[in-house]
Amino acid sequence: MRYARVAVGGRAVWGRVGATEVELLSGSPIDGKPRVTGAVRRETAVWLPPVVPPVFYAVGMNYPRHIAHAGVPVPERPEVGYRANNALTGHGSPIVKPAGVEGRFEAEPELVAVIGRSLRHAGREEARAAVFGWTIGNDVSARAWQHQDRTFWRSKNSDTFKPMGPWIETDVDALAQTTTLRVNGAERASFPTGDMVFDPFDFLVEITRHITVHPGDVLWMGAEATCRIEPGDTVEVGISGIGVLSNPVQLEGNQP
Amino acid sequence: MRYARVAVGGRAVWGRVGATEVELLSGSPIDGKPRVTGAVRRETAVWLPPVVPPVFYAVGMNYPRHIAHAGVPVPERPEVGYRANNALTGHGSPIVKPAGVEGRFEAEPELVAVIGRSLRHAGREEARAAVFGWTIGNDVSARAWQHQDRTFWRSKNSDTFKPMGPWIETDVDALAQTTTLRVNGAERASFPTGDMVFDPFDFLVEITRHITVHPGDVLWMGAEATCRIEPGDTVEVGISGIGVLSNPVQLEGNQP
Repeated sequence: MRYARVAVGGRAVWGRVGATEVELLSGSPIDGKPRVTGAVRRETAVWLPPVVPPVFYAVGMNYPRHIAHAGVPVPERPEVGYRANNALTGHGSPIVKPAGVEGRFEAEPELVAVIGRSLRHAGREEARAAVFGWTIGNDVSARAWQHQDRTFWRSKNSDTFKPMGPWIETDVDALAQTTTLRVNGAERASFPTGDMVFDPFDFLVEITRHITVHPGDVLWMGAEATCRIEPGDTVEVGISGIGVLSNPVQLEGNQP
Repeated sequence: MRYARVAVGGRAVWGRVGATEVELLSGSPIDGKPRVTGAVRRETAVWLPPVVPPVFYAVGMNYPRHIAHAGVPVPERPEVGYRANNALTGHGSPIVKPAGVEGRFEAEPELVAVIGRSLRHAGREEARAAVFGWTIGNDVSARAWQHQDRTFWRSKNSDTFKPMGPWIETDVDALAQTTTLRVNGAERASFPTGDMVFDPFDFLVEITRHITVHPGDVLWMGAEATCRIEPGDTVEVGISGIGVLSNPVQLEGNQP
């Protein structure tokens, strides 16, 4: 099943995504069994981030080829970081490049696990069973700020820097897929989604030694490859079996 | 006015705190004008974190004496970091020291600004007007993990490591107060709350150059002094004009 959140009359409404329609739901499918309350045409839907997480976890270096390319040591244990909800934006919405940012402005295509139940002291199978579904993230990064600043606050968390969506797919073997990054239709990277140093379940086992994860929390799994994006581009992150997250890039101050 | 969230029949309910009672409210005073729906006795109230923020901002080194003591350079600009909501706990609830943690386990007494309205590209006066009120935080930190790990994930964000409360005070000149840290009733530190390198409004001006802050976001302002805490202790963070945040410390596995 594919679940999304769409904007209806200025409100965020959960939906179940079909071939031509998005059936509107009475509540979150993560928390219960919502009923169908209506429908909108899929091609005119306004997509929101499929969930606003209580905690937004993000993995850094987690793909062997990315680590080798960066020349950093392979992590010895799964250590997680964080991103911030203000930066989330939906499928189809613009990534706004700040007017003052210099240097490389890049896309990072990532698999995202969406947590479905509270979990503490989990084993691998419990961790697997606690994943509600999978979506796609683009960990947009301003490299100059990333190098200048003590934290990732503006380099990775400026408004619109975290496109996520278009929906949550509940029925997919997410680690057996292929992640593809395209700019203006041209392929810029393609890699096996599951070719990770530590997979999502490794992370959930380690995190929940000390931390309770909650329904709606998200875990972004890192990228094998990145590419430069510029205002005027359209950047697409595809994961087979899930979907394609597409966003135009605009320069701050040039939004319509 | 003092606003809190209390547990009533397993639910989180907003309240207005009086001398002997907490008047229960129909909704959040940050979002609107809730009506009174009942009351509980203040002395039996179960205090929750006064807000669960969309984004949990936290300042690191921000007090000149703390910076001098640590031997690090004085920050040249206000750079913010993040903490995670899973770690929040309320006034009176235990701080649980993980069984496996070694080294210094410490309390950090902090002023917390609670944001009341959406803000982007703010000037100082707009930033000041956007603060709904002030509360108290204890940025509990496991130093060995802080030094071993690439991020603050478990050193500062393990469950119960972020006591916040007991309430939000809306009518106080927060930067003109005194912060006091006590363990088992004995004063361990006392400092002028407002003796900061960058004050909350400096941070909000800088953050909102790139980021929209939202109602309910919190900004923890750092500490001038820390002290060691151990299971069996009761740690109190007081800020004059706001209140006292008190939490017992327990060893993991020894909770009642």
